[in-house]
Amino acid sequence: MYEERIRRPDLRSRIISADEAQNMIQDGMTVGVSGFTRSGDAKAVPRALVRRLEQTTEPMKINLYSGASLADTDTLLAGQNVTLRRLPYQSDAALRSQINRGEVAYIDQHLSHTAEWARSGLLGEMDLAIIEAVAITEDGGIVPTTSVGNSPVFVEQAKKVIVELNMAIPAEFEGIHDIYLPEKRPHRQPIPLVSVQDRIGRASIPCDPDKIAAIVITDEWDSPSTIVQPDMETQTMANYILEFLENEVREGRLPKNLAPLQSGVGSVANAVLSGLKTSSFENLEIYTEVMQDAVFELFEAGKVAFASSCSFTLSETMMHKIIPDIEKYRSKVILRPQEISNHPEIVRRLGVIAINAALEVDMYGNVNSTHIRGTHMMNGIGGSGDFARNAGIAIFVTKSIAKGGAISSIVPFVSHVDHTEHDVDVIVTERGLADLRGLSARERAEVIIEKLVHPDYQDTLRDYFERATAKGGNTPHLLQEAFSWHECFEETGDMRNVLIWKDDLLAHLHHTPVSLPV
Amino acid sequence: MYEERIRRPDLRSRIISADEAQNMIQDGMTVGVSGFTRSGDAKAVPRALVRRLEQTTEPMKINLYSGASLADTDTLLAGQNVTLRRLPYQSDAALRSQINRGEVAYIDQHLSHTAEWARSGLLGEMDLAIIEAVAITEDGGIVPTTSVGNSPVFVEQAKKVIVELNMAIPAEFEGIHDIYLPEKRPHRQPIPLVSVQDRIGRASIPCDPDKIAAIVITDEWDSPSTIVQPDMETQTMANYILEFLENEVREGRLPKNLAPLQSGVGSVANAVLSGLKTSSFENLEIYTEVMQDAVFELFEAGKVAFASSCSFTLSETMMHKIIPDIEKYRSKVILRPQEISNHPEIVRRLGVIAINAALEVDMYGNVNSTHIRGTHMMNGIGGSGDFARNAGIAIFVTKSIAKGGAISSIVPFVSHVDHTEHDVDVIVTERGLADLRGLSARERAEVIIEKLVHPDYQDTLRDYFERATAKGGNTPHLLQEAFSWHECFEETGDMRNVLIWKDDLLAHLHHTPVSLPV
Repeated sequence: MYEERIRRPDLRSRIISADEAQNMIQDGMTVGVSGFTRSGDAKAVPRALVRRLEQTTEPMKINLYSGASLADTDTLLAGQNVTLRRLPYQSDAALRSQINRGEVAYIDQHLSHTAEWARSGLLGEMDLAIIEAVAITEDGGIVPTTSVGNSPVFVEQAKKVIVELNMAIPAEFEGIHDIYLPEKRPHRQPIPLVSVQDRIGRASIPCDPDKIAAIVITDEWDSPSTIVQPDMETQTMANYILEFLENEVREGRLPKNLAPLQSGVGSVANAVLSGLKTSSFENLEIYTEVMQDAVFELFEAGKVAFASSCSFTLSETMMHKIIPDIEKYRSKVILRPQEISNHPEIVRRLGVIAINAALEVDMYGNVNSTHIRGTHMMNGIGGSGDFARNAGIAIFVTKSIAKGGAISSIVPFVSHVDHTEHDVDVIVTERGLADLRGLSARERAEVIIEKLVHPDYQDTLRDYFERATAKGGNTPHLLQEAFSWHECFEETGDMRNVLIWKDDLLAHLHHTPVSLPV
Repeated sequence: MYEERIRRPDLRSRIISADEAQNMIQDGMTVGVSGFTRSGDAKAVPRALVRRLEQTTEPMKINLYSGASLADTDTLLAGQNVTLRRLPYQSDAALRSQINRGEVAYIDQHLSHTAEWARSGLLGEMDLAIIEAVAITEDGGIVPTTSVGNSPVFVEQAKKVIVELNMAIPAEFEGIHDIYLPEKRPHRQPIPLVSVQDRIGRASIPCDPDKIAAIVITDEWDSPSTIVQPDMETQTMANYILEFLENEVREGRLPKNLAPLQSGVGSVANAVLSGLKTSSFENLEIYTEVMQDAVFELFEAGKVAFASSCSFTLSETMMHKIIPDIEKYRSKVILRPQEISNHPEIVRRLGVIAINAALEVDMYGNVNSTHIRGTHMMNGIGGSGDFARNAGIAIFVTKSIAKGGAISSIVPFVSHVDHTEHDVDVIVTERGLADLRGLSARERAEVIIEKLVHPDYQDTLRDYFERATAKGGNTPHLLQEAFSWHECFEETGDMRNVLIWKDDLLAHLHHTPVSLPV
C-alpha cells in the first residue's frame, strides 16, 4: 500500500522506523519541521526522539524551526529541555513557560519572513528537515499533507530530509498544493498570482532524491483544534463587521463579493466567517493562512467560490467530514507555502480584508497581539503583520474586557506594540466598531473611547485622554500614568482600581520634592 | 518659449496667472499637490492663495494632500490657518505646532499607502490637483519636475488640474520619469519591475486634457535642502555600516555589488552613502525615495551604476551642478511615483538594504521615528516603514545621546512605536553596530546595551534589564519604570538623574499602603 505512495522505487529501501530515524538528530543541529497550527506536522520522529531522551542523559539541544505552531512536538521537547532556539511561532503552554523564563531563545517573526532568512543563509545551515507527506513522486517531489508551511524552503536548504509518509491522509490530497519558491535575489521575478485560484507552481515540493535520508511510515491524523463556539459577544462583533462590509459595498469601495478574506486563528475570526453564511454576500474568496471550520461551512452554504490557505486547522468533527472527502474540495481549495499565502506582494495586490485578534489595543489604535502586560509572550505575531500592513482593510477584534472586567482590553498605552497606528484601519469590540481610516490620532482616540471601551472604563479613559490633551501633542499622553492600568492590575488584580490607586501615587509624585544632585 | 512646452496647442489658451488660478481653491475643498521633500512642489498657486487670504477674512479651510513634505507651502498655509487635514508627511515647524496643538488633523501614513486610499475612494473626492511640470505632451500628459510623489494618482482622481509649468527646470527632465499606475483591484497585475533600471510605464502622467483647468507659468527652482555635513560621529556610524556590509559579502549573504540601497533623509543617511565613495564596492544600485547629494557624488566617483528614486533633494550647490546638466544623468536615473519607489512588492523583491534614522530605540529593538517623548509629532514615519518591513536588511541609525547627553536615544521602552522589534535587523550608533537578526528579545537587549548605549547610561539600562529579567518574560520590563527616563527628563531636564529621581518615587510606591475599596 505505501509502496504506491513512494513512486520512485529506489527510495522504498529507505523506509526505516521512527526510532531508527530519530538517531539522525544530533546535539547542536538545526532542524526544520513541517507543521502549521497543528496541521501537517512531523509527528513520529520528534516523538521517537523524546523516547530516546527519556532513557539517556546525553546532551541534546536543537534549533527547531517550523511553519507556525506545532501540535504536541513543542510540549514533548519542552519536557526534555531540547529546544534551544525556536522560530517563527508557537502556542504551546510548556514551551511558552520556557520562553518566558529565558530558557528558550524565541524569535517571534512575521510568518512570511522566515523563508527569506533561510534562503539568504541567516538561519545558518539546516542539518535536517522532517516533512510529513502523502506521497513521494517519481522525481523525488514531496507531496505535503494538511499544511505547506515552510516545508518547501526547509527541503531546499536542508542537507538531509526525513519524510513521514502519513497513510492516514488520503492520497487524494495530491493536487491540493501549489508549491512556488521565489528565486534567490537578485534574480527574483514577480510572483505571478493575480487571483486566489491561480496555480503558479507544482503539486509537490521539489527535492533531490539523494537528500531523502529516510522515510518513516505513519498513520495518524492531525491533533484537532479546539474552536470555542461563538458566544453572544463574538457574534455581535461578527455582525458589526458584516454591517461594515455591507456599507463598504454600498459606498462603492468594495465590489459585491468583497475582496479576498483573511482571518486569523481563534473564535472571533471563526465567528465572523460563520456569520457570512447568513449574509447576502455571494462568490466570496478566501486568501488566508489557516482555514478553520467556518470556511468549510461557507463552502457548504454555497457562499465561498474559492479558498487559498497555507493549512487546514479543523475541529475533530470537521476533520471527519473533510479529510476523507477531500476529493470534493480539490477544485475549490489550494494550499500554499506560507511565504506565498502571507506574501506582502500578494496581500497588497489582492487588497485582502484582514481580520485578526488583538490582546489589547490603545486609544490611538496601536495593537498588542503577543505580550501579556508587556512582558510575557502568549503565542507570537504570526501572520497578522503580513496581512495587516498590506491589507486593503486591516481589522482587529477583541472583547472590550477580560477576566470578568478586571482587565480592559482598551488601555491608554499598549504594553507592547505589534501593529502600529499606521497599520490599523478598523477595531471591533462587542461594544461597537471604530473605523479609524483617515482620522488623526486625536480623532481616533475620540472614536475608540466612544465606540469600543467598556462602560466600566470609559470615563477613566476619557479623563486620561482629556488631561493628556491639555498638555498637547499629536498623540497626547501622560507618560507617568501611561501604564498605570497595567500596574494597577499587577498590584491589585483589577484595573478598575486605577483611579484610587493612582491618586495616591500621583499625590506623592506631584508634591514630594525630588532631591537632585547639585 | 513656454509654448513649446505645451505641446497640445489648444491648452495654451488656459494659461492664466497664479493669482487668477488660486481662485479655483474654495473653502472645504480637498487639494492634492505635487511635491516630495521640498522637490517638485507646486509653488506659485499656494503662494497666491495666501496673498488672497492675507487681504480677506473669508473662511478658508482645505484638506491638503501631497507626496511628502513641501517646501514653503505648509509654512504659508499655517500662517493663515488654512490646513484642516494633512497627509501623508510633513516637516514644517509651523504646521508641526498646529498638529501638536490639535488644530490640524494629521494622518501620518506609510508613503506607499496614500495612493491606495485615494484610488479606493477613502480620501473622498479630490477637487483639485496642482502639479508642477516641465511640459505638457500632445495627449495632455503632464511631465513632472524634480519629484513624482503622489502626482499620478492625484491627477487620476482630481476633478480639475492646475499645472504649474516651471520654466526654470530644463525641458531635458522629460524622459527621467517612469509613470506606472497599478490597476484598480480586483484586476491588479504584478508590477513588472525586476531591476532598478527597468522602465515599466510612460514618461508623463496621463491626464484627460479637459481636466487641465489652468496652466500657470513659473520660473523658480526648488528650495534647496540644508544637509548637515557629516561630523565625526556620523562618519563613524557610516563606517560601521560599511564594515557590516563588507562582512555580509564575505559571508555570501550579499553579492559583491550589495543589493539596491535605500537611505532616508538626513545627515547620517547621507554620510553612509558618502562613505561608499571610498569603499571597495562597485556597480552599486540605489532604490530609494529621496536622492540626496551623496548619490550624485557616488555617480561622480563611478561607484553607482543606476539610481531609482521618487525625488531629488539637493543642496543649493549640488542643484547648480545637477539641474542644468540633467541630460548627463538621463541614462542613469529614474524618478518614479512614491507608490512604486516604496512599494512593498518591489522592496521585498529587490531585497533593498534600507537605512533610516530613528529618534529613539529601546533595548528590544523597537523604534520611534516620529514622536518626541511619545506625544509631540516631529515629522512623520514617511517611507521608513515601507522599506524597513520589506527590506532584505533593515538598518536604523541614531546617535546614542542627544542634547549634550541629557537624553539617551536608547531607552528601556520607546515612548512611541513606529517600527516593531519584528522589523528591525540592525541598529547603529556612534558606539557600535548591533546585528539583531536571529536573536531572541533578551539576546537583543544584551547586544544593544553592550554595543549601542552611551557609557553614561549603560549601567542604568543594564540594571533595569536585570531587575526586569528577574521578574521573567520574553521582553522583561518593569512597567512602573518603563517610561521613567522620559519622565525624569520632563521633570529635571536630564535623563541622567533617573536613578536618584526614581528611587524616591519607588520608595513611595513600594512602601506606602494603597487604599482600595472593600
